[in-house]
Amino acid sequence: MSYLNETHDPSMQSWVVSANVPDNGFPIQNLPFGVFRPQGSPNFRPGIAIGNQVLDLAALAGVQPFTGQAAQALEACQGDSLNALMGLGQPHWSALRLALSRALRQGSAQQAVLEPLLVGADQVEMGLPARIGDYTDFYISAHHATAVGKQFRPDNPLLPNYKWIPIGYHGRASSIQATGHSFPRPVGQTRPASEGGTPGFGPCQRLDYELELGIFVGQGNAQGERIALDDADAHVFGLCILNDWSARDLQAWEYQPLGPFLAKNFASTISPWIVTLEALAPFRIPFERDANDPQPLPYLSSAQNQEYGAFDIDLQVFLSTQTSRAAQAEPALLSTSNFKEAYWNIAQLLAHHTVNGCNLQAGDLLGTGTLSGPDQGQEGSLLELNQGGKQAVKLPWGEERLFLQDYDEVILLAACHKDGYPTISLGQASGTVLPARV
Amino acid sequence: MSYLNETHDPSMQSWVVSANVPDNGFPIQNLPFGVFRPQGSPNFRPGIAIGNQVLDLAALAGVQPFTGQAAQALEACQGDSLNALMGLGQPHWSALRLALSRALRQGSAQQAVLEPLLVGADQVEMGLPARIGDYTDFYISAHHATAVGKQFRPDNPLLPNYKWIPIGYHGRASSIQATGHSFPRPVGQTRPASEGGTPGFGPCQRLDYELELGIFVGQGNAQGERIALDDADAHVFGLCILNDWSARDLQAWEYQPLGPFLAKNFASTISPWIVTLEALAPFRIPFERDANDPQPLPYLSSAQNQEYGAFDIDLQVFLSTQTSRAAQAEPALLSTSNFKEAYWNIAQLLAHHTVNGCNLQAGDLLGTGTLSGPDQGQEGSLLELNQGGKQAVKLPWGEERLFLQDYDEVILLAACHKDGYPTISLGQASGTVLPARV
Repeated sequence: MSYLNETHDPSMQSWVVSANVPDNGFPIQNLPFGVFRPQGSPNFRPGIAIGNQVLDLAALAGVQPFTGQAAQALEACQGDSLNALMGLGQPHWSALRLALSRALRQGSAQQAVLEPLLVGADQVEMGLPARIGDYTDFYISAHHATAVGKQFRPDNPLLPNYKWIPIGYHGRASSIQATGHSFPRPVGQTRPASEGGTPGFGPCQRLDYELELGIFVGQGNAQGERIALDDADAHVFGLCILNDWSARDLQAWEYQPLGPFLAKNFASTISPWIVTLEALAPFRIPFERDANDPQPLPYLSSAQNQEYGAFDIDLQVFLSTQTSRAAQAEPALLSTSNFKEAYWNIAQLLAHHTVNGCNLQAGDLLGTGTLSGPDQGQEGSLLELNQGGKQAVKLPWGEERLFLQDYDEVILLAACHKDGYPTISLGQASGTVLPARV
Repeated sequence: MSYLNETHDPSMQSWVVSANVPDNGFPIQNLPFGVFRPQGSPNFRPGIAIGNQVLDLAALAGVQPFTGQAAQALEACQGDSLNALMGLGQPHWSALRLALSRALRQGSAQQAVLEPLLVGADQVEMGLPARIGDYTDFYISAHHATAVGKQFRPDNPLLPNYKWIPIGYHGRASSIQATGHSFPRPVGQTRPASEGGTPGFGPCQRLDYELELGIFVGQGNAQGERIALDDADAHVFGLCILNDWSARDLQAWEYQPLGPFLAKNFASTISPWIVTLEALAPFRIPFERDANDPQPLPYLSSAQNQEYGAFDIDLQVFLSTQTSRAAQAEPALLSTSNFKEAYWNIAQLLAHHTVNGCNLQAGDLLGTGTLSGPDQGQEGSLLELNQGGKQAVKLPWGEERLFLQDYDEVILLAACHKDGYPTISLGQASGTVLPARV
């Protein structure tokens, strides 16, 4: 089985010159989908990123240079979200990708049709790529779960269900925003200073980020049906970066017995370009269980999943502050990690989510949970970097951080690297904390 | 302060004769909103229930007999959901209610305009009243929380946060269905028979219902803003009945540390008519804290909320089975309860949900959580009726139930009763369990 086709040819070049610059992240092998509007335009519309340009797919649909499934897929790119395209299914996404790849190649006869429909990426505003019906957040890094669990249960950090169930819970869809936004520090209740006392109330004092990837569901499943593990890829439209901002002090007081609520639902940030699973095919790697760990139950295990189930995606967290920006210092790199370190993989998340008949829909978003790695420097949250609030993180310009301060900007990056293959970027997800409204 | 106006006049009669039948539940003082389609029609559209009839609001908008805010509100009733009407806000909902009340009264000059737009309620199919963006489920019955908590923590059933925080969590919007549907028994993992063993896997063996009310959000709030306690009523469009089906064996294994997930998200059932907060005004009652309980924090407490915060709504659970239907036996009454027994009230749920800046949107649904009362016979779930799975419930036709069997139908009813006032029904939410698909 090969996931590769002509769209992955690493030697392919585009007539969009900026797409051929080494490591620009958006070469013709990427072609991520997003929703944008040119500056001054009121209407968001679908587009793809190519080099430092955005191709207006809504306008291209008006010209309709394609035929067959590619043309049908392009027809679905005329609203203000990608939901219609997502709902068409994998053969349509793949046909459109192939048609766009051919049209954007050096020597394409369609250059004259497409070239007027390019807009500079620095001339557009990016929106949410989809109407997100339901948002589910998972918890698939055993390294994160162990590090956080240790703070609550030093002797028994990983609960008994962890290695059997891809633990997940429902999150809030309405407060998910695209990169570049800001939000006020959340306000809420915190644990009483002494047992039986009155809870605290006020602005969150332990505001944190969480480094995650987001998985956009394409075609869903009918209620009562399930998505088999080996069919799951065809239901995934693509991946983005996700920051699951977390108010640790609110969380500690509210989360028993039904899970996090106000500690998470005030804001989440995603990167605006969805990199398709097809674009990520060259970065598929085997998914292996450690010999000490139990094999997953049959509905979460297959030969195909073991051979191709994981993805090699590099992740980075940067922080800039009011002080660093005033000093024109570069944002500080806080940690690096990789998606391949996760205990569960994408197909397993879809198979598990639907095993009970729960229906997924086009545009649904699944979060991976914090993607911490096994080593120091690979922590996906401040709570891990600061060892449970005990050790402040030193920043290169002289400041320290236990938790986020007002006007701090957290910038998450993700990209795939492989020898002999152009870098595939997932872009960035950045957001800025504003003072609480009290 | 009075919540009552001319639409609440208990002596008022309608020219729709069936609306004047005592205790029919849908008198002219009710006028709940829903979404329906006549048998054979492909298109759902908004309507109101009056007696045993449904008034087609989309068709009425075509005629447009109203002026001002009522006309604007009616204009918003032309899609396939109530979201547009909900988003207009309380003054518009109230203006439309008043105009409909006047047009449906005995002696109204508009009878000739409206009468052709009535359809028999037994001739229509009801749909979901709104596109539900986000669904949040709360846990506001201390009686339920104590009964369930006792099964896990006999010495300490209520956690320390319970009397300070209206505990809630996010649920699944995609799998909410309107009354009359059926769904396959969920399948999933269950706790290993012995510690460290392999989990069980198969059809849920402890399937349960939960007797709840649903609160439909009308006008929302911007992200970062909050809804003040005394403003909350104006953001609530109305109430329905909600069955939060629960797979207790799946839940027991999966819920730590992030809360229920597959145990809940396979299906939820709501009644299709949303009874507006205005229609419920005569049933507002004081909201009082027991002297032994802490007063809520200031953002959850006000004189207005104490005077009018609770609602007197009677609730009932009925069960029918394959056997009872074959014997033409009436469904068995399993329990009765009342919304007024809850520890938190509607306005407190909205104020809490938004205190951190989380944005609510028109069409969002909040569940109350299981509304058990303090006494025997008031249990809102089988898990309470069967004392944690220990004592089967005897049914009048000779069967017993620990948990739900295939083809069992659970029917939830809710209605308001008050001397000198016509009964206001919230209709019913019924759903049927089908065999698991394995």
